[in-house]
Amino acid sequence: MTFAVPLVDESATAAGKEPLTEDEFLAALMKIGEERYHSLHPFHKLLHGGKLNYGQVQAWAVNRFYYQLSIPRKDAALISRLHDHKLRRLWRSRIIDHDGDEQNEGGIERFLHLTDALGLDREYILSTRGILPGTRFAVEAYVNFVRERSILEAIASSLTELFAPAIHEERIAGLLKHYDFANDVTLSYFRKRLTEARQDVEFGRAYVLTHAKTRDQQEAVLNAVRFKTDVLWSQLDALHFAYVEPALIPPGAFVPEDRK
Amino acid sequence: MTFAVPLVDESATAAGKEPLTEDEFLAALMKIGEERYHSLHPFHKLLHGGKLNYGQVQAWAVNRFYYQLSIPRKDAALISRLHDHKLRRLWRSRIIDHDGDEQNEGGIERFLHLTDALGLDREYILSTRGILPGTRFAVEAYVNFVRERSILEAIASSLTELFAPAIHEERIAGLLKHYDFANDVTLSYFRKRLTEARQDVEFGRAYVLTHAKTRDQQEAVLNAVRFKTDVLWSQLDALHFAYVEPALIPPGAFVPEDRK
Repeated sequence: MTFAVPLVDESATAAGKEPLTEDEFLAALMKIGEERYHSLHPFHKLLHGGKLNYGQVQAWAVNRFYYQLSIPRKDAALISRLHDHKLRRLWRSRIIDHDGDEQNEGGIERFLHLTDALGLDREYILSTRGILPGTRFAVEAYVNFVRERSILEAIASSLTELFAPAIHEERIAGLLKHYDFANDVTLSYFRKRLTEARQDVEFGRAYVLTHAKTRDQQEAVLNAVRFKTDVLWSQLDALHFAYVEPALIPPGAFVPEDRK
Repeated sequence: MTFAVPLVDESATAAGKEPLTEDEFLAALMKIGEERYHSLHPFHKLLHGGKLNYGQVQAWAVNRFYYQLSIPRKDAALISRLHDHKLRRLWRSRIIDHDGDEQNEGGIERFLHLTDALGLDREYILSTRGILPGTRFAVEAYVNFVRERSILEAIASSLTELFAPAIHEERIAGLLKHYDFANDVTLSYFRKRLTEARQDVEFGRAYVLTHAKTRDQQEAVLNAVRFKTDVLWSQLDALHFAYVEPALIPPGAFVPEDRK
């Protein structure tokens, strides 16, 4: 018995097509955000609207921390592929933003202020053993994408930062309004990202505009950004499924007090 | 026709053996340096003894630069595998040592002072297109080792730094004595490494002493250091073959003026 293997539809590829103009390319990028960014996910609307209970917010923080903790691994994976020491040095600032240095505690320590305020044990959080399989798979897919794809695609996958400032502002406002644990210290991670991400995204945007010249390269960039929106979206699917509806927590994952 | 496949000799593995004491383990580490470090290679003796001509020293610098340039990729490959952000931050200092920051030009720029003084074009050097295949293969084997082996082995492979200060001192003294291009600026890379490497090696030594507890783990550490001595040694084999004896330069590799 043989299986019908679905073949790539060659007509659907960009081969032979004219490159997009810069305006068209940027518009296509922004359209991905409008259609696919995780700000559209029901779980985010619940979080920002104050509709989640304490345990559900804890579950979000437990899982989101893993994403945060893994971002420098993703950035180091890119640096480990760059032969240009000046580009490496530029990209390194992202790792410093998250892992910190002598002057700056860094995003990961900042995020731990939030998990502290949510009554979550640091050893437990740092062990990452309570995260959902869906979180781990999505995050590792992102790290592997950056390890394996072209440098252009690896850099392009960071471009969801184009859409991030709006969601950070919405998140800060929503959490402050609705939840007791929210204050300047516990939300300092998101506030700091408002300025950090703006600097990073300028570089990323300029890089893809300079390096994606053919239509194939432009489509590869757009697909990298789509891939990244999937990484973000599927993490919220996993949270929604486990903790909202049908609220089926997978074996080994974090169990809030009121579900024990 | 079948081939006789050499099997691993199980009796030669460390399974079931008692762990080495700390003193025995450190002695075994140092013995690797005494027997296998590239300071023993004839090419190094020629270099430090002033026996190489200008073109041969140029060839050494062209190739050695590629090793230097690649070290931060190796270190980023390790960081991309570390889930502990404090350990990542500690290891990051190695990347900064080579790639530089606002205060410190970094080892790669420092090495370029040497290639400048040797009359080598920066664009050519940075393109790495004149390096020997043997250099590229050895260096990439090192980067891949750190990407793929256990974290313990990846960290252990840096421990040739235990043997480095002696060779750096010998190199600085030898080059200053024998070559006109040698001065404080052109040799600043090696001088700076005298202090940088000492800090790093303390961490690496402490790490393997803490984490290599079974005999298998200790042997894995020793094999990682042996592997690294091979990486260094084979680069000098390639140089010696191409530029000293039989002096057969492979197609595409750097050709000194007097060999054109």
